[in-house]
Amino acid sequence: MADFSAPAATSVEPLTIMGAGLVGSLLSLYLAQRGHEVTVYERRADPRKAGFVEGRSINLALSDRGWRALEGVGIGDEIRRVAIPMYRRVMHDQQGNLTTQPYGQDNQAIYSVSRAGLNRTLLDLAEADPRVHLRFNQQCLGVDLRERQLELRDAETGQRATHAFRRLFGTDGAYSAVRAAMQRTDRFNYSQSYLDYGYKELNIEPGPGGEWLLEKNALHIWPRGQYMMIALPNLDGSFNCTLFFPFEGEKSFAALQTPAQVQAFFEEVFPDVVPLMPDLTQEYFQNPTGSLVTVRCFPWAFDDDVVLLGDASHAIVPFYGQGMNAGFEDCTVLNELLDQYGTDWHAIFEQFQQQRKPNADAMAELALYNFEEMRDRVADPRFLLQKKIESKISAQYPGKWLSLYSQVTFSHTPYAEAWRNGQRQEQIMRRLMPHIQSEADFDRAEVQHLLAQEVAR
Amino acid sequence: MADFSAPAATSVEPLTIMGAGLVGSLLSLYLAQRGHEVTVYERRADPRKAGFVEGRSINLALSDRGWRALEGVGIGDEIRRVAIPMYRRVMHDQQGNLTTQPYGQDNQAIYSVSRAGLNRTLLDLAEADPRVHLRFNQQCLGVDLRERQLELRDAETGQRATHAFRRLFGTDGAYSAVRAAMQRTDRFNYSQSYLDYGYKELNIEPGPGGEWLLEKNALHIWPRGQYMMIALPNLDGSFNCTLFFPFEGEKSFAALQTPAQVQAFFEEVFPDVVPLMPDLTQEYFQNPTGSLVTVRCFPWAFDDDVVLLGDASHAIVPFYGQGMNAGFEDCTVLNELLDQYGTDWHAIFEQFQQQRKPNADAMAELALYNFEEMRDRVADPRFLLQKKIESKISAQYPGKWLSLYSQVTFSHTPYAEAWRNGQRQEQIMRRLMPHIQSEADFDRAEVQHLLAQEVAR
Repeated sequence: MADFSAPAATSVEPLTIMGAGLVGSLLSLYLAQRGHEVTVYERRADPRKAGFVEGRSINLALSDRGWRALEGVGIGDEIRRVAIPMYRRVMHDQQGNLTTQPYGQDNQAIYSVSRAGLNRTLLDLAEADPRVHLRFNQQCLGVDLRERQLELRDAETGQRATHAFRRLFGTDGAYSAVRAAMQRTDRFNYSQSYLDYGYKELNIEPGPGGEWLLEKNALHIWPRGQYMMIALPNLDGSFNCTLFFPFEGEKSFAALQTPAQVQAFFEEVFPDVVPLMPDLTQEYFQNPTGSLVTVRCFPWAFDDDVVLLGDASHAIVPFYGQGMNAGFEDCTVLNELLDQYGTDWHAIFEQFQQQRKPNADAMAELALYNFEEMRDRVADPRFLLQKKIESKISAQYPGKWLSLYSQVTFSHTPYAEAWRNGQRQEQIMRRLMPHIQSEADFDRAEVQHLLAQEVAR
Repeated sequence: MADFSAPAATSVEPLTIMGAGLVGSLLSLYLAQRGHEVTVYERRADPRKAGFVEGRSINLALSDRGWRALEGVGIGDEIRRVAIPMYRRVMHDQQGNLTTQPYGQDNQAIYSVSRAGLNRTLLDLAEADPRVHLRFNQQCLGVDLRERQLELRDAETGQRATHAFRRLFGTDGAYSAVRAAMQRTDRFNYSQSYLDYGYKELNIEPGPGGEWLLEKNALHIWPRGQYMMIALPNLDGSFNCTLFFPFEGEKSFAALQTPAQVQAFFEEVFPDVVPLMPDLTQEYFQNPTGSLVTVRCFPWAFDDDVVLLGDASHAIVPFYGQGMNAGFEDCTVLNELLDQYGTDWHAIFEQFQQQRKPNADAMAELALYNFEEMRDRVADPRFLLQKKIESKISAQYPGKWLSLYSQVTFSHTPYAEAWRNGQRQEQIMRRLMPHIQSEADFDRAEVQHLLAQEVAR
């Protein structure tokens, strides 16, 4: 293959990536920095080219696992320049009253970044590495796993071509074509499971001087029990809002059919934000209603030939802000295994799927669980009190109590371990909270005694 | 379309079935008897033609739900002629000792039938109806759901053709191409889940005069805890055996690599049957190792255009002998809905999936559950004692206690309801059995008192 013209060391072989999204482009940097020639095929056009049409730029929350993966190839600072720290949740009730909940301690934050912008930056960085070869407009029609051939169709010329690969990394997302080929092999476990909720992206305009009309360094939530809206800040002073809403039912996408219905509904349940959304009804009917899927599968590897990473093997719902972070952590883990096992690709792929699968499953559960927290529990004063108490426990017993949210978001503890720890903490809190009616109760001797017993176990 | 040359009444429209297996061919009879012209496409060649190569003819257990569906189109007697009643389980232990367990009361039996033979008979019956048009060697390459077009490839000529349909019934099995098209629509929930066990078909030869060398009217089980073998009788005096065995591990398909290993293993764990299997090692290496999948999906219908039936929507593992019966019951239920809703196909498809989905899910659970019963619990004297006690309860409280097995196998109680009843019964038995050490204990006043209380609840 023409791309692999550089003489390769015996241990440095040419590699192929299908999918140049967030995970694929980051992975190409990792592999190229190890000396491999890397060809990356991508179905879509180059998003950096003029005239590229993309959906509304949705925002993602980058947190510690993602940062570590970016820093692993030395591009953390590059990304930090376009990221907005969000230090806390701001909850908006139906009367426009605000409550807040810090995400972590001191300066801990999650970071709002534009998916499209981040992808473009990663592609620029990948392209700057002479060992990375990006090939856009290459739709994957099929993968012959045994013959190790990719069948691609060039979207511009319509030409079909077969490309041989020795090792293929499938980073082509929740609707992965590489995974579809693996799904046809025997004993491939697979599920795609949709929520009865959809989502709709909306926009909060910047103020006249480009200022933020809601608190800038926060993630905003309008929790409404069975549904919610959230908003994340953009650099230009606008916010990206997302309404998570049932497809069917009394209050649902199906029930809002006219601009007047949409306007009335928003004025009733999100009154403080309606004045900031001048294009509300137009956007509502113009923007598509997205669906929310969880994808689980196993195995992730086909011999030492093919491996899936990111959404291709573990697409999750967005409510913990961990989809991209989990995919980036895949790159970190794979890179560690490459350090450890050298050129024993069989061991690398096998260890990768054995280590990552339980963590991906735990993260899928956590993401589903957090939807209820965001749309419902954060509106409950008892829940917010419990979170304050947990924060006091954490301060009193450093190293012995890190909240589930912090373990997931601000640590590199494997997701499955974090989930188990979180479930243990929740059991303790269920025993403790009946004795606590206010923050001051935390210092009562009875509570302190109970807590000391529980922590000592 | 040329097939639909008969003038159709307004309410009798031409229909299309993809898949002429057991469910597709039976369904064609149901639809044709209602006056519809029915075109049935089938991927494989006509299995009734000379030279047709099929795998070993595996056997299925036909029970009441299946019989009702066959009788609904008047073909019960036709099939009964080639079916062998099995009145009980016969368990073979490692020393060749036998124990037995009746399936039901009196003459209740499940019936051993050859899958291939049954399929051929159903095809003969379908073809005898002038409204049924069978088209073999038609591989479904894709379905355009919105345009209502099937893309077919003729396996003999290699020609591709597009066939319009107004209504399509997908009965093309666990690896359904119709379902694959639906899987690409938004919000289609789907899972395929494999056991860590595979299966291998083997054969017990007939005796010299065509006699059965094991008890004829029984299903034979060699329960061995983590694995098992079963055997069902054929009309020619032979038995079809199936070994259900882990793929990997100490005792597994992976561990038996040579004829000597296979022979030694069978002589150790199935000593009484080895003399009846002269071709054991040859068959073992010649016959493929099958895998065991459970397929769940939803929705089963696409508008009023397409609906899935049988394994295409609910493939299950074979351990309750209900895969075919559940698929045949789909035909019964659909036919009842056609009676009820006339030409309101939207209501028919919607009611069909709403009624059948929970029952298919329950049956999938039951089938997985019964694997443990067959390979392990039937070898436990306490389990067999419990089953005898349950049979006494059933006799003492007629109409109030029908065993789970009987509800599934000898009734038309919806599977989900049977499963719930069975779980309640199991809870009662857990309270009762500690008081029972032998069959005679059943008549003790304490036991009778407890039982009366439990049944009265």
